[in-house]
Amino acid sequence: MASELVRIPARRGKATRLKRGQTIKIINTHGSQVVDTWAFVDGLMTEFMSMEHSRATHLKMVPAVGDALVTNKRRKILTLIDDRSSGVHDTLIAACDNERYGLLGCTEYHDNCTDNLAAALAELGLRPPETPSPLNLFMNIPWTSAGRLSFEEPKTKPGDYVVLRAEIDTVVAMSACPQDILPINGKSRQPTEAHFQVSDG
Amino acid sequence: MASELVRIPARRGKATRLKRGQTIKIINTHGSQVVDTWAFVDGLMTEFMSMEHSRATHLKMVPAVGDALVTNKRRKILTLIDDRSSGVHDTLIAACDNERYGLLGCTEYHDNCTDNLAAALAELGLRPPETPSPLNLFMNIPWTSAGRLSFEEPKTKPGDYVVLRAEIDTVVAMSACPQDILPINGKSRQPTEAHFQVSDG
Repeated sequence: MASELVRIPARRGKATRLKRGQTIKIINTHGSQVVDTWAFVDGLMTEFMSMEHSRATHLKMVPAVGDALVTNKRRKILTLIDDRSSGVHDTLIAACDNERYGLLGCTEYHDNCTDNLAAALAELGLRPPETPSPLNLFMNIPWTSAGRLSFEEPKTKPGDYVVLRAEIDTVVAMSACPQDILPINGKSRQPTEAHFQVSDG
Repeated sequence: MASELVRIPARRGKATRLKRGQTIKIINTHGSQVVDTWAFVDGLMTEFMSMEHSRATHLKMVPAVGDALVTNKRRKILTLIDDRSSGVHDTLIAACDNERYGLLGCTEYHDNCTDNLAAALAELGLRPPETPSPLNLFMNIPWTSAGRLSFEEPKTKPGDYVVLRAEIDTVVAMSACPQDILPINGKSRQPTEAHFQVSDG
């Protein structure tokens, strides 16, 4: 049974608990919004989804349908069970933070995914032990054979989504990335809301 | 002035302090040894060299001469000032750990870079706040245009080295990776010692 559709406001974060076997559908509502996504073992926040451990397991830069993302203790935490998008996501780039926007020229505080993670978890009475490298859903960071990277517009359309299944009781946090200086959220550089929905597997 | 040549024993870790401006030369003594490398801000262990923040800064998969690696707070910590190797290093793969060897079929404890980091820091009276994703010097993880990764033999020869300069007072830790199941330390699968040398810039 699917629960209500939950809004992740533009430039903000939101977190939810998933019981083992439950799924979460994360929706690119307006078609060009990156959603930074983290997962922590419920009750053991120091164990979390790790991009560097997952890449070593899948031997892929980006997970594909059927791949389980693993924790920093090599346990399966979330499996990508459906991907109704271009399949272009990112595992290479850190969550943005206020320092990042300072380096991009901002002279005042800028909303950022690092603070959104902390705020989203705080709503559940939790604190992140740090900011793990996120699964950046819908984020388009192409690489060249020479290893050059670039920040590009998403290859998504309104309503695109992915579905992830919890392999263990998990806290999932998401941030509708507030990046409005680079075109990572589309050439209009206008961050938008996104949505998610939890279902009973 | 260069200090003594310090040995990193095969399958073990070693750490050293660097004052800002000092350099460390890390040597692939026998020619096919991966050296997992970490850097922590001296006196503030929760701020450390971060591969995901560095990739976002350089826009490169692997740092090249002249690139400064940055911390999880976006501060420059180590600059790659010389690279007398093939230039093939890795920033994508987590440090090995006992869990990893279990998944590779080991039924007993296996030496690993995660425990080597902790042991190396313990010799200086320090503890890692976690195991950051390392700069895997001399490690050959090629990628394809489709994003497939593989563990391959190093592209190095005896005596190859890199030199890193501290941009801030830093604790550098290194592990001569004990991986002997995959050919990441050469096709003989025989981990060896490596060496390092600190100099006054």
